[in-house]
Amino acid sequence: MSMKLTILGCYSATPRTNTNPTAQILEIKNHMFLIDCGEGTQVELRRNKVKFSRIKHIFISHLHGDHCFGLVGLISTFRLLTREADLHIYAPKGLKEVITLQMKLADSWTNYNLYFHELSATTSELIFEDDKVEVYTIPLDHRIYTNGFLFREKTGERKLDMNAVLNEDIDVAYYRKLKQGADVPNKKGELVANRSVTKAPKAPKSYAFCSDTAYNEAMIPIIKEVDVLYHESTFVEKHSKLAAPTKHCTAKQAASIAKQANVGTLILGHYSTRYDDLSEFKSEAETIFNNVLLAKDGRQFTFE
Amino acid sequence: MSMKLTILGCYSATPRTNTNPTAQILEIKNHMFLIDCGEGTQVELRRNKVKFSRIKHIFISHLHGDHCFGLVGLISTFRLLTREADLHIYAPKGLKEVITLQMKLADSWTNYNLYFHELSATTSELIFEDDKVEVYTIPLDHRIYTNGFLFREKTGERKLDMNAVLNEDIDVAYYRKLKQGADVPNKKGELVANRSVTKAPKAPKSYAFCSDTAYNEAMIPIIKEVDVLYHESTFVEKHSKLAAPTKHCTAKQAASIAKQANVGTLILGHYSTRYDDLSEFKSEAETIFNNVLLAKDGRQFTFE
Repeated sequence: MSMKLTILGCYSATPRTNTNPTAQILEIKNHMFLIDCGEGTQVELRRNKVKFSRIKHIFISHLHGDHCFGLVGLISTFRLLTREADLHIYAPKGLKEVITLQMKLADSWTNYNLYFHELSATTSELIFEDDKVEVYTIPLDHRIYTNGFLFREKTGERKLDMNAVLNEDIDVAYYRKLKQGADVPNKKGELVANRSVTKAPKAPKSYAFCSDTAYNEAMIPIIKEVDVLYHESTFVEKHSKLAAPTKHCTAKQAASIAKQANVGTLILGHYSTRYDDLSEFKSEAETIFNNVLLAKDGRQFTFE
Repeated sequence: MSMKLTILGCYSATPRTNTNPTAQILEIKNHMFLIDCGEGTQVELRRNKVKFSRIKHIFISHLHGDHCFGLVGLISTFRLLTREADLHIYAPKGLKEVITLQMKLADSWTNYNLYFHELSATTSELIFEDDKVEVYTIPLDHRIYTNGFLFREKTGERKLDMNAVLNEDIDVAYYRKLKQGADVPNKKGELVANRSVTKAPKAPKSYAFCSDTAYNEAMIPIIKEVDVLYHESTFVEKHSKLAAPTKHCTAKQAASIAKQANVGTLILGHYSTRYDDLSEFKSEAETIFNNVLLAKDGRQFTFE
């Protein structure tokens, strides 16, 4: 199954008529994860025809408005749409208080279960896991407490090579063990090497979301060799002096992280709203790293 | 000077691709008052080319999300645009805590002065006054504490009829008193009747914003004979059974209030998002009251 990323918004600071603050949907192994939720995200979800009921987990990087001001409205809309499914929110400590205070003042509690998983660790931690996917935090270096998120498919089961299996005359009772990678006996009692009758599963995919952050080599071991890295690039070189004091990055710095981490593809985003033309981000990053894509509101990326 | 109303959003419940929750700009006597601020209001302000720096007073009716979830983002955007002018917010008690908590968590305080005027009275009170305009609350009957707002121009000074003034040979030192309506002596020492040398000022204009509310005759004495009444009409007759339990109104109920208060013009709004065609709101209201206009996102009404 492919992994799909839909950019709902990829600009920094303020929502404008034609640009949206950060929010994206990652589809991975039947999950539809919402990452960040700037103001207007619920409208962008509608515009991109994302089915609201499929969103069960929301990951919030940090509590600057361009990454979370749309969340209370989305939670409230889910209620108005009579949602029943549980909703899990992974966010820095404090967001629960903000949201519950607003629900209290509006006398509007959700009719579905709303779970806050408040984050405060400063080292990478596993925050979600099921039989197919794991999600880890990526501690980032920003003006306030911030996490990126690493989404990693688990390695699937091995596939039976049915011709070889039947040829070896292996009892069906052993198929489960074969898929798990074990050597098993055939009906004659001879041990059959697993790799002679099974095929490797598809390589598991991985996606790292890193925004907002200063240039931060500490993330490299965590995101090492991910298939896709979304890394913020708020500025291009001519404004590089603004990056460090605001704890943001240039396109080149994002590319340098991508290169050192040896990732498959780099997607740039979180552009300052001062730029109308984004081509400079790409060309500057490409001086350091080859496989660069530009996020754009409404753009979808599919990774087979 | 004319009074101008710009509808930024006039739908209830949730923002959608083509409809916005409640927000409107009232231009009256050089003021630019923002009334309510649902999610996405800052984008609608941009779309309608409202100059952010001209907004100095924001009035929030109640703390349901479709009337206030856009406020924290707007306050934050004002900061990013390096606003310097003071900002005054008139809102139910509780909003200050919500906004300051979010600013604290984002470590992003405003660089301009932000004043909260928290409301909790259940009778109409004067909440803003300068030499040209007064603003009163209109207690409404909704599921949570809610106020409408009455904006009333003060009666201006009388205009000098210069031919008559010169003819009566009145000293220039008395002009100020004449404008204030006093009878004054001429140079011969004879008392001149004010009305013989001045003209009445333009009739002061008034606007009442009443949303959200159940059918509520208690507001009638407060809004009596206003020029323009914006009254919520969430439903049409075929859904009238939904109005009372949700503490909303039908178009006919809004028209009945307009008729009893003998207002000049009724503007309907706060439509449930279930309606694509709004013509029924108008036709139903017109069975009771003659001068009915329909609010629509982006629509401007000018009252000379």
